[in-house]
Amino acid sequence: MTSRAAIIGGGVIGAGWAARFLLMGWDVAIFDPDPEAERKISHVMANARRSLPGLYEHSLPSEGVMRFHRTIVDAVDGAEWIQESCPERLDLKQQILREIQAACPEHAIVASSTSGFPPSQLSAASARPDQIIVAHPFNPVYLLPLVELVGAESTVHRAHKIVSRIGMKPLHVRREIDAHIADRLLEAVWREALWLINDDIATTAEVDDAIRYGFGLRWAQMGLFETYRVAGGEAGMAHFIGQFGPALAWPWTKLTDVPELTDDLVEKIASQSDAQAGEHTIRQLEHIRDDNLVAIMRAMKARDWGVGAHMNAMDTTAKRQINDSGAGPLRTIDRVVPIDWVDYNGHMNESRYGQAFSDAADYVLAAIGAGAAYIEDGNSFFTVEAQTRFLNEAYAGQHIWVDTIVRQAAGKKLVLHHALFGDGVAGPLARCEQTLIHVSLTTRRSCEPGAHVSQGMLQLARQHAHISLDLDR
Amino acid sequence: MTSRAAIIGGGVIGAGWAARFLLMGWDVAIFDPDPEAERKISHVMANARRSLPGLYEHSLPSEGVMRFHRTIVDAVDGAEWIQESCPERLDLKQQILREIQAACPEHAIVASSTSGFPPSQLSAASARPDQIIVAHPFNPVYLLPLVELVGAESTVHRAHKIVSRIGMKPLHVRREIDAHIADRLLEAVWREALWLINDDIATTAEVDDAIRYGFGLRWAQMGLFETYRVAGGEAGMAHFIGQFGPALAWPWTKLTDVPELTDDLVEKIASQSDAQAGEHTIRQLEHIRDDNLVAIMRAMKARDWGVGAHMNAMDTTAKRQINDSGAGPLRTIDRVVPIDWVDYNGHMNESRYGQAFSDAADYVLAAIGAGAAYIEDGNSFFTVEAQTRFLNEAYAGQHIWVDTIVRQAAGKKLVLHHALFGDGVAGPLARCEQTLIHVSLTTRRSCEPGAHVSQGMLQLARQHAHISLDLDR
Repeated sequence: MTSRAAIIGGGVIGAGWAARFLLMGWDVAIFDPDPEAERKISHVMANARRSLPGLYEHSLPSEGVMRFHRTIVDAVDGAEWIQESCPERLDLKQQILREIQAACPEHAIVASSTSGFPPSQLSAASARPDQIIVAHPFNPVYLLPLVELVGAESTVHRAHKIVSRIGMKPLHVRREIDAHIADRLLEAVWREALWLINDDIATTAEVDDAIRYGFGLRWAQMGLFETYRVAGGEAGMAHFIGQFGPALAWPWTKLTDVPELTDDLVEKIASQSDAQAGEHTIRQLEHIRDDNLVAIMRAMKARDWGVGAHMNAMDTTAKRQINDSGAGPLRTIDRVVPIDWVDYNGHMNESRYGQAFSDAADYVLAAIGAGAAYIEDGNSFFTVEAQTRFLNEAYAGQHIWVDTIVRQAAGKKLVLHHALFGDGVAGPLARCEQTLIHVSLTTRRSCEPGAHVSQGMLQLARQHAHISLDLDR
Repeated sequence: MTSRAAIIGGGVIGAGWAARFLLMGWDVAIFDPDPEAERKISHVMANARRSLPGLYEHSLPSEGVMRFHRTIVDAVDGAEWIQESCPERLDLKQQILREIQAACPEHAIVASSTSGFPPSQLSAASARPDQIIVAHPFNPVYLLPLVELVGAESTVHRAHKIVSRIGMKPLHVRREIDAHIADRLLEAVWREALWLINDDIATTAEVDDAIRYGFGLRWAQMGLFETYRVAGGEAGMAHFIGQFGPALAWPWTKLTDVPELTDDLVEKIASQSDAQAGEHTIRQLEHIRDDNLVAIMRAMKARDWGVGAHMNAMDTTAKRQINDSGAGPLRTIDRVVPIDWVDYNGHMNESRYGQAFSDAADYVLAAIGAGAAYIEDGNSFFTVEAQTRFLNEAYAGQHIWVDTIVRQAAGKKLVLHHALFGDGVAGPLARCEQTLIHVSLTTRRSCEPGAHVSQGMLQLARQHAHISLDLDR
């Protein structure tokens, strides 16, 4: 049965949650008293649809169904997960959480997106306080995986499994504090940045450049401590702290008071921010941000590190579920064209057709027993020839798949024929005939494959022998 | 004449400067009294050689010459840029800067890597205070572009040009403050993170995850203010500050005192950091960090945003300098294989051969007048067929180049023959015969090219008609 989430409050954060649940196959019920809510949410949904599905090397489940409801009671009916994302006022949140708990299933998880309040405050007046946890996400919620979970152990344990299913990286905050963990760090930077603007040391654009050309790049892959561990080099972490530590007591730290947000300061920040954005509208900046995040996250995927390793684990879980009947061609690729595969012509670059066929060959190799473990043992296949006919264009966000036939399997030689298809196009987008040779990774020369691999090759070739290719299309 | 830099102090930061200057074609003179300096610097140099050259789509100039000297006097002789990177002690830095100024050319720039001291303090006892500026870089200096420049206007102006030549992004800090700009922000986060560890709210690994799965990804491409501008959505920046602002006055900010770095706290951080690193040695972590940074920076390059737009500007400047004699094939690619082009077989993936050939075709198109402006006008060429023979492997860091011949130019049809070569291999690594068709980007159908493009195609085809291809190799 399709899982159901209820979204209470559909601002930027609530809409982001709705988009993530929906694109991960959940039905989503939304309550927001704002008459503009549906329009605003559909805008966030459009952003999510153009960026999230291409993150992975597998197709996401079919989208769930989204419905808007007029009352909290209707929205939470039958929901497995209820996410509250209302304005950051404790009395308001407590009131809404009471309404939710009065109507929702007892086993449902009731989570708040609060940036600051700990669960004990949120559930102070609740009859079932353990049901209420904090699940604090980061904008854009449909792309960034981090979610801080705070609350009763047993509820957090269940929540951990659920957010993992929708591609998130749960961080269990074991002790309640105001602002959890990440916002503590963000708050510190924000305070310091406000002083820099207030005192005319730097503009908003200069502060942003100080981040994104320097430590921001480091922090996308390692955090604060691991970065410093590496910087400490051979001398180690304790030595590094010894060096950096004394500066903490220097006068730099005088700026830890809270600057007053006067009208003048707010106006200064807003006008500098306008100048910084230049010609870009908010909508354009959203697309730029999302495209950048997809590109960075996918770059990390290729490195299999941090956020990328997390995403690869999602792919592995999904791929295990692919079943081949053995009768027809192998469905070797089933995915969405990601933003980073598109070139200046507005379509998938020719080299990314090549990547799809390379990935398709990897799938075949895994199927004949020449996967990761075989390569680890020092054997592999190298492509020696590829003939590609590009028959039609493919676009970012388009669902594509590759059907592969083993055309020849003889000794060291394996010939594959790939046909790439895409949603909305009748014939194939491209065909590729690819010749691979078995090699030793030690000598880098060709050699006979292992017996089980030979057998796997031959078996597929026999199964596919009856399939006739209509090469005119 | 080759430019010369002097590096005074060869720790992690000084060695990073040395590597960047050297790989950007400068001669580098080093002074460091540490008897281990040469070994330590050669280690940083090895890291830089495996990561920096592949960042760009063009070949860097030939490496300069690196020499070690026994005195500051010898090292600074004839230097255009002198970089001081000694331990963070004001008296020591003043003493060394005095020695440098006594011996160096008057027109040389004398820059300090100090994280905290403003130039007026560094040059307090100097006869030529305007010569001394702060040029504060970020580790790893050979990869991260940010450098904060502080000091006399005229010197900073000259310094700006020089650091830009070696691929850095200068940020002119217009008003002296302790710790410049970026370290103010880093200091704030560091202080807050120490409290989180001290109070057992989180481990070092958890703090790092809170960064790298969330806001760290945002900060690699937009900074603090632009991120919040976008998050504010339609309501704008002033509204966003209004929402976030009040939290500044809440009790979260109680943790702005400086935690005492007791032995216990240092030990706690060091041991948590050990656990976090797991099996990885510092050297492995350095490689992981550098490979990740290269991958992220190159992902941003494809988006032409932030650090990527900065790097693309370097490519454009370099490409303008390529001259073709017109006699032989076109040298369409001349670059180093970047880390992100290598797959699990430890060599360049077949799809990246395709990318090299796709980039090579772009070069030809620009040469015949079908470059960016032509595409902007709604015309382009699409590849319809490619036959590739993979003859040898290519490795990360290997210098590669493509020679391209126009084999056929007739109406809408353009046939190119690419041969890919690599350092250390006699014959070509691959050959590709690629057929392109001229199209309208509006109708997405084939059509006749503009007159100047037709002429360009035909001219190259005529020039290349006499070149005979030895297709057996």
